Amino acid sequence: MKIAVMGAGAVGCYYGAKLAQHGHDVVLIGRPAHVREINKNGLLFESGGVRTTVGLAASIDPVAVAGADIVLFCVKSTDTASAGAAIAPHLGDNAVVMSLQNGVDNAERLSAIIGRLVVPAVVYVAVGMAGAGHVTHFGRGELVIGPDDASDVIAQTMRPAGIPVDISENAQGALWAKMILNCAYNALSAVSRLPYGELAKGDGVMTVIENVVAECLAVAGGLGIVVPGDVGAAVAGIIKTMPAQYSSTAQDLMRGKPSEIDYLNGYIVRKGGELGVATPANQVLYTMVKLLEMQADQPSKG
Amino acid sequence: MKIAVMGAGAVGCYYGAKLAQHGHDVVLIGRPAHVREINKNGLLFESGGVRTTVGLAASIDPVAVAGADIVLFCVKSTDTASAGAAIAPHLGDNAVVMSLQNGVDNAERLSAIIGRLVVPAVVYVAVGMAGAGHVTHFGRGELVIGPDDASDVIAQTMRPAGIPVDISENAQGALWAKMILNCAYNALSAVSRLPYGELAKGDGVMTVIENVVAECLAVAGGLGIVVPGDVGAAVAGIIKTMPAQYSSTAQDLMRGKPSEIDYLNGYIVRKGGELGVATPANQVLYTMVKLLEMQADQPSKG
Repeated sequence: MKIAVMGAGAVGCYYGAKLAQHGHDVVLIGRPAHVREINKNGLLFESGGVRTTVGLAASIDPVAVAGADIVLFCVKSTDTASAGAAIAPHLGDNAVVMSLQNGVDNAERLSAIIGRLVVPAVVYVAVGMAGAGHVTHFGRGELVIGPDDASDVIAQTMRPAGIPVDISENAQGALWAKMILNCAYNALSAVSRLPYGELAKGDGVMTVIENVVAECLAVAGGLGIVVPGDVGAAVAGIIKTMPAQYSSTAQDLMRGKPSEIDYLNGYIVRKGGELGVATPANQVLYTMVKLLEMQADQPSKG
Repeated sequence: MKIAVMGAGAVGCYYGAKLAQHGHDVVLIGRPAHVREINKNGLLFESGGVRTTVGLAASIDPVAVAGADIVLFCVKSTDTASAGAAIAPHLGDNAVVMSLQNGVDNAERLSAIIGRLVVPAVVYVAVGMAGAGHVTHFGRGELVIGPDDASDVIAQTMRPAGIPVDISENAQGALWAKMILNCAYNALSAVSRLPYGELAKGDGVMTVIENVVAECLAVAGGLGIVVPGDVGAAVAGIIKTMPAQYSSTAQDLMRGKPSEIDYLNGYIVRKGGELGVATPANQVLYTMVKLLEMQADQPSKG
């Protein structure tokens, strides 16, 4: 099977590597530094303390999606529109396109751009880039997708490669459950530059998180989304399972990159506005992160 | 008239200087660096581009309030309890004590500590410390106080010294109006490290401010406080009149000092909790500043 991965960040590299290790013909499409390193030395894949080198193709050119049976779309939410437009002219007629992204509306946005169905996947994996062409896997790796036409092909390709795939009637609810955790923690960690464990000790933090989650659930309810599982328990679990972790939003801001906040708390605020559901706590978190993005462009004052 | 100023920050130095210039016997009680400089070279008083040196006494010892007819209490809200306890044993029986502080409950808290009436004053002055023993006045200077027993003495002492004093039936409401402006802007400026003019350009900032102000007014209403004037116009005015100004909370955090947030958004959250009035936007702002105070104690991550 030919598989193209659009976006060679940690998620794209991880799934690309798993599929390549199983013998699929994989090409990663990413930024020059990664692509150069991968084409020179292969992708360095680290998991459970074991390092292996995975041979796969890499390109900076979106035309590399041509001929792919499955396209894993793994760019940041901020890049969905531009990356979607870049691959659109090169997609084969029968290519199955999956979105493996944060937020809940990337598949819908991408679908509008490329003019075909996009399968949204909920991604549960802890991975990071340790350097150019070097991905580290810390744990998990399963995907949840909905019962679309292409779901069986996806599952039958992924499962033998060691990627658990759950086909769920409520994949959209699972995407929401994941986004709500991001709404609860990402901005707080970003603004305070504290990891989750330290963050949780802050005065009023758990009240803020309760308010944020309640607003998110109210918006979800207004949209007819049923959020599965015990969100409260999931929220509490983050502090215990990842006390030393900084949110991706925090990492983006520390690196001076735009964050995905428009697709997390910003999405809740926009949908709340459309529905007439009040979202004051999400509004403050969203606005704070946008201000920090502005502040990153200012000379230091402190 | 003998006047003691407890707290030789910018507000204390300004009013102390005005009263000393009019011939009153003024002593400033403050930190060693200021006291040393003032005792050596006098207080350098800068206003409208003109520098004058004001001769007045300075001391680091709270016993210096002994014998004062009027005590101007000008410490930060965080220091009200400790500074109140420090002066309590030395206050003369007939001393009039005024609170010239941010927040709305300092006079009440101080009164409980020193066991006598405290006159709350709303302070409208733009001043700053330019260095040890050097206060700069940027504009205004008027006070609003309630019609207490001591109000006439205060007004008759202050007015001839060039300090406009308005005796108002609704001084408490005026304190609230000022605090609401602080609740609207201080935390946002502190978290973003942006001055008001830049801040106002941020995505969603005016919505956050509207939400914060609405919550504050709901809490005020629950307490039976009538907030005078057009709060919305006052909020909008800050951006136009002080575009380059950073909030005092921002300045505190930049200097690694504890802020007054417990007496601004934190006060709204506490009173809202007592009254059953929801204050989610104030809660986030309060919590963010508390997190930044924690973060100031951590090694830099970014």
